[in-house]
Amino acid sequence: MSKIVLALGGNALGSTPEKQLELVKATSEAIVDIIEAGNDVVIAHGNGPQVGMINLAMSIAAGTDEKIPEMPYPECGAMSQGYIGYHLQQGIGWELKKRDIQKNVATIVTQVVVDEKDPAFTNPTKPVGRFYTKEEADALQAERKGTFKEDAGRGYRRVIASPEPKRIVEIDTVKKLSDDGDIVIAVGGGGIPVVETESGLRGVPGVIDKDKSAAELAGELGADVLMILTAVDRVCLDYNTESERCIEKMRVSEAKEYMAKGEFAPGSMLPKIEACISFLENNKNGKAVISSLKNAGMALTGESGTVIEY
Amino acid sequence: MSKIVLALGGNALGSTPEKQLELVKATSEAIVDIIEAGNDVVIAHGNGPQVGMINLAMSIAAGTDEKIPEMPYPECGAMSQGYIGYHLQQGIGWELKKRDIQKNVATIVTQVVVDEKDPAFTNPTKPVGRFYTKEEADALQAERKGTFKEDAGRGYRRVIASPEPKRIVEIDTVKKLSDDGDIVIAVGGGGIPVVETESGLRGVPGVIDKDKSAAELAGELGADVLMILTAVDRVCLDYNTESERCIEKMRVSEAKEYMAKGEFAPGSMLPKIEACISFLENNKNGKAVISSLKNAGMALTGESGTVIEY
Repeated sequence: MSKIVLALGGNALGSTPEKQLELVKATSEAIVDIIEAGNDVVIAHGNGPQVGMINLAMSIAAGTDEKIPEMPYPECGAMSQGYIGYHLQQGIGWELKKRDIQKNVATIVTQVVVDEKDPAFTNPTKPVGRFYTKEEADALQAERKGTFKEDAGRGYRRVIASPEPKRIVEIDTVKKLSDDGDIVIAVGGGGIPVVETESGLRGVPGVIDKDKSAAELAGELGADVLMILTAVDRVCLDYNTESERCIEKMRVSEAKEYMAKGEFAPGSMLPKIEACISFLENNKNGKAVISSLKNAGMALTGESGTVIEY
Repeated sequence: MSKIVLALGGNALGSTPEKQLELVKATSEAIVDIIEAGNDVVIAHGNGPQVGMINLAMSIAAGTDEKIPEMPYPECGAMSQGYIGYHLQQGIGWELKKRDIQKNVATIVTQVVVDEKDPAFTNPTKPVGRFYTKEEADALQAERKGTFKEDAGRGYRRVIASPEPKRIVEIDTVKKLSDDGDIVIAVGGGGIPVVETESGLRGVPGVIDKDKSAAELAGELGADVLMILTAVDRVCLDYNTESERCIEKMRVSEAKEYMAKGEFAPGSMLPKIEACISFLENNKNGKAVISSLKNAGMALTGESGTVIEY
């Protein structure tokens, strides 16, 4: 039996509540397959589209005469943890019930400490919310309605600061429940970014990369496996070219060589590889896996996915 | 040492994120006073203003061309649990740190099962969101933008269904953490209302009364005390009249007599008294306390508040 931290990507969730409830069914099947195989699972997930949507909605509403306040990013992140966690609890709960597995599922609202001096705060890179055309993005940026960048060939999105995770505030609770065999959903959306001040923790505007927070979570939990689930079956070299070839296994040293050659796209595969390396450098006996959601079970036995070891 | 379920009212929270962070400081002081006195505390809280605000904001934004979806009430309730829980975690965490008390604080996203045939679904009574004048409310109702009712002399508010809580889905997790000495925030906003279907749990539009869910939580946990914190120091008879007199202690039988005489205002003190009775009828050795937030510590030792026993 292994303790596995699963990081769910955007393709495991959805852009509307109805779509998300639907997508979460397949997500839950894949997760419960892993649980049924005898593993303890802690689930991290992204929230880029959701936190962007919530922040934008609150901001639009604040501009009306309905007495609705502007909602800062940390609070929007907390909302997205509730929203997505609720759907995951429901989906996983039903999948467990169908298979007659008695396990609790809980979402822990999670704060993650970041460094106030993180250079990310002056260079926003994390895409949130929906996609815009270049023309729309240019117009919004001219109106000072955020900073926009092109996102992996899919269009333009608002970007905000993405500081590095330093410490998971609620780690003891997550560990206690997971060690007791419960399924825990934590560091949703990378966690709510907070800084330590002389009067306690304070939320800061930003969205932490969920793969990095999942790596931090796996490290703090002493997990055996960090498993990053995404849209592709394996990490590939020369991705999307005629000479594309996919990797079944690699060492951290090899991954670093490929990174140096610019093999992995920033904002896409690169942060996943970085998260795996960060986990493995602190947990040299651990295993990192990058796989598609649908092949997650096979990836655990080495039949699919890319396995990275120290 | 007692296990105490605290139900926080709207006055413990706030109408904007800034005000809420400020109010939560005093709330956290009162809560940590109770913890420091040697009690295990589980915290339930309301969300009427917050869930109404979130739902309205999403609905306003959905009417624009920003591709924002309508957000159903259960999802908005889940968001409010994340939002309010995050602030409480931060406030309580800081208060614990100041006093050098080593305890974990965690928010558990909580679903509460209700009956699909609950008559509440055809007769909405629970006020949510902001206050409107009679003229504004009449105009909105004419435009079919919700049902509006007068709320305890303070103005008109949207009302939605408030079904009875039947079972707390995540009770095992709450119990496990609380039994281990952790501070748990649960059934926020009364919990996310769900019904049991042949394909699992399904969210239903409504807001469960937080005092009733706190009573259900206290019962399922086998808590010693249900403590409902509100804006007044004690339950009073002939409230707001010249002959007003406040109650230090009463039995369930007396409370029922007063109820029969119409002493307690529906939507205000009545549901709190009903919640206390419901808890005590199932836990005859338990104690229910209604008190102001600031006198909560004194209410536990009988120096303030109204104590109800079976």
